[in-house]
Amino acid sequence: MKTLAANTRRASRELASASAERRDAALNSLADILDDRSSAILDANQHDLDAGERDGLSAHLLARLKLSEDKLAGLATGLRQLVGQGDPLGRPLRQTELDDGLMLTQVTSPLGVLLVIFESRPDAVIQIGGLALRTGNGLILKGGKEAKHSNAALVDCIQAALEQAGLPRDAVVGVEGREAVASLLDCDHDIDLVIPRGSAELVRTIQQSSRIPVMGHADGICHTYIDAAADPSMAVAVTIDGKCDYPSACNATESLLVHREFLPHLSALGEALIAEGVTLLADVSASAHLSGAETAGPEDGRTEYGDLRLAVSVVDSLDEAIDRIHANGSGHTESIVTEDPVAAQAFLDRVDSASVFHNASTRFADGFRYGLGAEVGISTGRLHARGPVGADGLLTTRWLLRGSGQVAASYGPGKRDFKHRRILL
Amino acid sequence: MKTLAANTRRASRELASASAERRDAALNSLADILDDRSSAILDANQHDLDAGERDGLSAHLLARLKLSEDKLAGLATGLRQLVGQGDPLGRPLRQTELDDGLMLTQVTSPLGVLLVIFESRPDAVIQIGGLALRTGNGLILKGGKEAKHSNAALVDCIQAALEQAGLPRDAVVGVEGREAVASLLDCDHDIDLVIPRGSAELVRTIQQSSRIPVMGHADGICHTYIDAAADPSMAVAVTIDGKCDYPSACNATESLLVHREFLPHLSALGEALIAEGVTLLADVSASAHLSGAETAGPEDGRTEYGDLRLAVSVVDSLDEAIDRIHANGSGHTESIVTEDPVAAQAFLDRVDSASVFHNASTRFADGFRYGLGAEVGISTGRLHARGPVGADGLLTTRWLLRGSGQVAASYGPGKRDFKHRRILL
Repeated sequence: MKTLAANTRRASRELASASAERRDAALNSLADILDDRSSAILDANQHDLDAGERDGLSAHLLARLKLSEDKLAGLATGLRQLVGQGDPLGRPLRQTELDDGLMLTQVTSPLGVLLVIFESRPDAVIQIGGLALRTGNGLILKGGKEAKHSNAALVDCIQAALEQAGLPRDAVVGVEGREAVASLLDCDHDIDLVIPRGSAELVRTIQQSSRIPVMGHADGICHTYIDAAADPSMAVAVTIDGKCDYPSACNATESLLVHREFLPHLSALGEALIAEGVTLLADVSASAHLSGAETAGPEDGRTEYGDLRLAVSVVDSLDEAIDRIHANGSGHTESIVTEDPVAAQAFLDRVDSASVFHNASTRFADGFRYGLGAEVGISTGRLHARGPVGADGLLTTRWLLRGSGQVAASYGPGKRDFKHRRILL
Repeated sequence: MKTLAANTRRASRELASASAERRDAALNSLADILDDRSSAILDANQHDLDAGERDGLSAHLLARLKLSEDKLAGLATGLRQLVGQGDPLGRPLRQTELDDGLMLTQVTSPLGVLLVIFESRPDAVIQIGGLALRTGNGLILKGGKEAKHSNAALVDCIQAALEQAGLPRDAVVGVEGREAVASLLDCDHDIDLVIPRGSAELVRTIQQSSRIPVMGHADGICHTYIDAAADPSMAVAVTIDGKCDYPSACNATESLLVHREFLPHLSALGEALIAEGVTLLADVSASAHLSGAETAGPEDGRTEYGDLRLAVSVVDSLDEAIDRIHANGSGHTESIVTEDPVAAQAFLDRVDSASVFHNASTRFADGFRYGLGAEVGISTGRLHARGPVGADGLLTTRWLLRGSGQVAASYGPGKRDFKHRRILL
């Protein structure tokens, strides 16, 4: 695996310095190859589906595993859309004339080599592979073993596309098995970022076993806070959407905080939630206003349920709501429902989470909804990328300095001064 | 230490949401306090100097340790300059109207809590403390034991300034001793970034013993490449500056690569370097053109000397130079000297280092020279910040969404479409 990672590093450097035209050509080739090879890909997929049925995979997992002509055509369309969106590489972010004939430019560059670990959906191979080609990053893909044949067929397509475009096929490789991942997590010299797309447990396990930076959300314990001045019907709509729209998503609301002055409206809110099938786990103060709620235990309010359970607690003030969010949340997404602009602004200013909303469902925290294009993932880390991450999260920068023989010893007290003229871009 | 880190986290959140005026007030107070308490600070410093002399500290270290009226006045001036430079927090970086009345804004925010580990120079307390106040970050400072009394006196000044401005004094704290650092490196819940300002060994040790992200340069193995088409006198000037201007700096040139076609000029370059006191460690091809050079061993060319030694190797092509840089360098800073614009552009495009230069000394890789203002450090990591890091490296972002009761379930196929109208800022 050390050799594999080193080979990917070498190939990634070739990819990184290839022209945008060449990387676009690879994306176009890949779209064409998906069309050409569709029946072979669907055969490989059928192989996985048959094995999955034999192994008793759930209907839900089988549906995620299944490819179709339509899905492949959709993937090809997605790739063609990436072409001609403008080169994300070499984009100047900052330019400063340090002195006459000494120009500094900070430009975007690929991050390097990514290790992406994902489960079941083989479509991810093409989506992530397309992003890697566009952003000039080397890519090591580890999919689930239930999609083994499908993933291998799709990685083959990417390698063929790289070759057709005159790029090194080693820039994108697939690996299998836990042992492979374990050894790759040691290759901190040749892998720059690990992106685990799966359960919070997967993310945590990887974070704990590697020195390579990991981009992902370990937890999604999101709060909706119903302020004293909340519009009661908006409170119902935003809470139901936050909890029920897709309960297993990381941006689903897990904990509802209710200002004491809103209590007269809590019973109606509770009934609406229960009508949607939500199980309420209420603290003592909230219970008094909720018929049909269960009593919250010590872990409720700090748990990612991933289902239709919802913790409900009463707070005496906005300050208490914010303190509880900081104490129990995971810094993912929190929303305040209020008609009071001062409370809203205080919440937006003070809550220390990746996404902070006013009068909107926590479910909006998502790269597609944010308009970032392809979503790489959602990061609850604070460095590099925070919240929903688009292709920009796969870029770093380099500082280019173009001179005419200048030396540092010429500058300083009693010598030349730097001009530091910032160039507007 | 767990409690200390948690207290700093709590205080940092208060600092983070304080107005720019209040943080500016703290900076102004700190400047005034440095003036007012200068004799007490100098007494504490004298205490450290006396102990240092008893313990036999080198003259160099004693000089770094020594404060003076002038130094304190300079620090106060620096703090007053930070005031009114515009608030770095809450700056909108990206704004998108997702739909009518649903506006997304990505804004700058403090990173959170920083642990900064530094050696000898007590001035660093004020410089780093000033940056923390300006960027709204909590700060835990661990200085060297030789500056114990000076550091404590200066941290006291910062805490007094915080109090005068109505901010929590716990936002900036000092700790002492290796045990304290060891336990703080475990506090990944409450510390977001470790910045070790010291030797490469210190940086490496900390990277290996903590899961908290570390910003720093583990190594500075910088290359200067003299191309076939280099101007011989520029080659001399750029190489001498790169090696000799400050040999122990991380951006000093450690390895000189010379294109075979430049060999007729190598002897003059070698003489100029030797005249400056440089010891040349040359490979076989280079030795033939260098009188007075020593023979390079296997580790030369991949070693950070930090002194006047310089490895010299001959390469057959630009490609070979770039391959060697990738194989032996540390991704810090590399420079090409050439009059050939095609070779220069290829080098700038292809070399995968934080800073890549054409016809300029590697010594320019520095936050002050880049015009970044206060330099936090130089990062050889690729994530978050790469190369010289200014105050921006101490910031992260948050996504603020202002709605009017929107829910995610309203959007999707057959329902509402997002507008995703990007607002120019």
